[in-house]
Amino acid sequence: MPALEVSGVTYSYDGFVTVLEEVGFTVDAGEIVGLLGPNGSGKSTLIKTVFDLLRLQSGTIAVGGHEHASPAAKSVAMYLASNDYLPQFLTGREYIEMLGRLYGVAVEHTAADRLFETFSMAGRYDDLIEDYSHGMRKKTQLVSALLMRRPLTIIDETLNGIDIEALHRTEKELARLRAEGRSVILCTHDFALLERLADRVLFLDHGVLVTDASTDSVIDEHGSLSAMVFGHLDAEPRP
Amino acid sequence: MPALEVSGVTYSYDGFVTVLEEVGFTVDAGEIVGLLGPNGSGKSTLIKTVFDLLRLQSGTIAVGGHEHASPAAKSVAMYLASNDYLPQFLTGREYIEMLGRLYGVAVEHTAADRLFETFSMAGRYDDLIEDYSHGMRKKTQLVSALLMRRPLTIIDETLNGIDIEALHRTEKELARLRAEGRSVILCTHDFALLERLADRVLFLDHGVLVTDASTDSVIDEHGSLSAMVFGHLDAEPRP
Amino acid sequence: MPALEVSGVTYSYDGFVTVLEEVGFTVDAGEIVGLLGPNGSGKSTLIKTVFDLLRLQSGTIAVGGHEHASPAAKSVAMYLASNDYLPQFLTGREYIEMLGRLYGVAVEHTAADRLFETFSMAGRYDDLIEDYSHGMRKKTQLVSALLMRRPLTIIDETLNGIDIEALHRTEKELARLRAEGRSVILCTHDFALLERLADRVLFLDHGVLVTDASTDSVIDEHGSLSAMVFGHLDAEPRP
Amino acid sequence: MPALEVSGVTYSYDGFVTVLEEVGFTVDAGEIVGLLGPNGSGKSTLIKTVFDLLRLQSGTIAVGGHEHASPAAKSVAMYLASNDYLPQFLTGREYIEMLGRLYGVAVEHTAADRLFETFSMAGRYDDLIEDYSHGMRKKTQLVSALLMRRPLTIIDETLNGIDIEALHRTEKELARLRAEGRSVILCTHDFALLERLADRVLFLDHGVLVTDASTDSVIDEHGSLSAMVFGHLDAEPRP
Repeated sequence: MPALEVSGVTYSYDGFVTVLEEVGFTVDAGEIVGLLGPNGSGKSTLIKTVFDLLRLQSGTIAVGGHEHASPAAKSVAMYLASNDYLPQFLTGREYIEMLGRLYGVAVEHTAADRLFETFSMAGRYDDLIEDYSHGMRKKTQLVSALLMRRPLTIIDETLNGIDIEALHRTEKELARLRAEGRSVILCTHDFALLERLADRVLFLDHGVLVTDASTDSVIDEHGSLSAMVFGHLDAEPRP
Repeated sequence: MPALEVSGVTYSYDGFVTVLEEVGFTVDAGEIVGLLGPNGSGKSTLIKTVFDLLRLQSGTIAVGGHEHASPAAKSVAMYLASNDYLPQFLTGREYIEMLGRLYGVAVEHTAADRLFETFSMAGRYDDLIEDYSHGMRKKTQLVSALLMRRPLTIIDETLNGIDIEALHRTEKELARLRAEGRSVILCTHDFALLERLADRVLFLDHGVLVTDASTDSVIDEHGSLSAMVFGHLDAEPRP
Repeated sequence: MPALEVSGVTYSYDGFVTVLEEVGFTVDAGEIVGLLGPNGSGKSTLIKTVFDLLRLQSGTIAVGGHEHASPAAKSVAMYLASNDYLPQFLTGREYIEMLGRLYGVAVEHTAADRLFETFSMAGRYDDLIEDYSHGMRKKTQLVSALLMRRPLTIIDETLNGIDIEALHRTEKELARLRAEGRSVILCTHDFALLERLADRVLFLDHGVLVTDASTDSVIDEHGSLSAMVFGHLDAEPRP
Repeated sequence: MPALEVSGVTYSYDGFVTVLEEVGFTVDAGEIVGLLGPNGSGKSTLIKTVFDLLRLQSGTIAVGGHEHASPAAKSVAMYLASNDYLPQFLTGREYIEMLGRLYGVAVEHTAADRLFETFSMAGRYDDLIEDYSHGMRKKTQLVSALLMRRPLTIIDETLNGIDIEALHRTEKELARLRAEGRSVILCTHDFALLERLADRVLFLDHGVLVTDASTDSVIDEHGSLSAMVFGHLDAEPRP
């Protein structure tokens, strides 16, 4: 069963400007997919619709086979926001515990504490998130995803700017999630990261899914992901 | 004359642990150089020493041929910090004006305003920086560098997480700085960006300059920058 | 029925250090109560326990007559965190809508938009929270509380640093909540605000409820709230 | 000699709307003055003009007897911004050292470290400011002011939201600055703080200095500072 099936999704904030136009794609179990797009491409609207933060206007979305607005769907997928949206009045432990209750996962705090160490945050698990640096907050999001191990994880820019060792470690862990049949969507402009890790890439522009192809085939055709994307941006008018 | 000459720089915070060990390299005029290193590699200490925020303990540093602590050196180089260090009580215009006074540059505010537009910040030049988003602050830093056009600009993670069109535009502008004989040091883990743009890469680990080589030669030898860096991190013990 | 009843609450993070010691108090319907305490007084632990973010170790807590960990209790009380904990990837409208679903309140977005205007945020309701200033985020929290109109609202430092007109307006609105029989707990060191608005004050130090008295009686006895609090802090050893 | 003399200052951003209108006042040596005003009252424009971040358009400003744009004036006055404008890539020590060089003050780092302790930040002096919480950054600003001991210090909302013990300690230290003949301008809406500490208050509305009177006389006439300010805001049309 696919981790995510999006079909015929069209969205308009006001009935006039179309932000998403007949967007459809599938993310299979055990697949890492890159999601690319410039500002205003509709990427955020798409993600919010998947998580039922915006009401679906047309088309269908299934998460792990469940209708996307159902409680079942909501326990399948996890969203790591780009902007360290974490409750600062909780400690790392309290936050992870809260997530565990939310997703019905019994958290092994010893393992969590060890992951904090692995990500160069030894001894900080019981500190207030308010006292975490920007980088630590991103790493706390990553650690939480590795503990919850949802069938589908969407990582929105969270890997930007984390330290190189954490990045390297995260890449290994994401590959492990994939090996377990779990799926990951990576929203990032780090093209080299996508070339290393993504099985497939989706490129959205002006609400239209311009590219839905395996990473290898994009590299075969354009030489690199950046060549494909920047070539598209430079074309006038855009295709 | 080189934009930056670092020679025999050793640094210790406490006299025991060595953070930088005999670091030496040159950045030529008209060169874009990538500076890479894990957390604790000494990268920050190196940059702070170059800008005389930490006192040089041994070795020599020359910026544009001037002793690095001299007023002349300080007007040559500009530092874009990773963490949007901008005075939030100023507007974009007031900030750019302040920088102009600092570097002795007569700012053309019409051009600045147009750059704001180019970077998708139309009409925000006279708003308080306090009201800018994280991404806008990074782009304001980039715009300020493009206006000051210092002989040497050090960009510390500022390109992480900016939108794809701003990234594309910035790459073109940095190439133009290079064509004018100006130099840029890019601190980033976006390996694809470095492969597209950097003439040379410096890789620092545990305070030692492990790699100082042309980007092409690193790719020839290792296949990619990431292969070189991650290969090094995976080696036990590290070379 | 009291909005909040706390009785015999003792808490220890590790079994040795006691953070809360036999804390008990009542907040009646239609009462505004100030909660004061230095860093480490146990204030945060108390609030987290009320909201079941920390598990109750001993004693009882009832919110609107419901056992505090029950779903019924959770829909009664709302917490405004001191540190603008808002999902930055949502717009104001999307956030308010999400809260409405959470508390089972049908949001009147026209009224919400008008409240944004009243709080000097005209035209910003559909902007991303990411683009809101620090002050706007606090005001968005306040607006959301005025829309949800929960029987009990806990406002944790959210009034600090907002502009003077928003403060004045908020005071009037909080008085209106009180007139409707709703209750508010204000955590703030703005003693004048408490003297203007709070019916009663709770002062916590080292986990012990030192003072639980009407604002008037404290002023009668000590001259002012600050005289009571600072007098206590200056006493050696503290009573 | 007065710490600050402002006379006949009028300011307009565009030649049409007047942001400051013939503003004049004096801050004497050894005086603590409260500066109050709603959003858009001109408070920020006034402060930026005093610090020559905006060019004076008409009138005169003298800081410690020096023309306000002269280097001499700039070493007399220090500005603590409301929004923790601190270089996050420096440690506390590095930042204080940098300020010391700027103001020509030989910093006693042992004393600074002790002040960090006093403000509940023991052991954090050599940590990166990036890793400081919001509250710690405000306290770092306060500590820096207590070390620089400029003849004139302007504290812009920096006291909002700091912990109660730090507030109490700061009040004592500000009183000591006053006893040494130094002057402080406090921008805050914490009316009780001003009633405890300020010798005089300035109230600005729509660019006009509405009130310039001793705190005692305002309390005599209106009962409290808040009664004066809120009464003014409630009047229609405003006087």
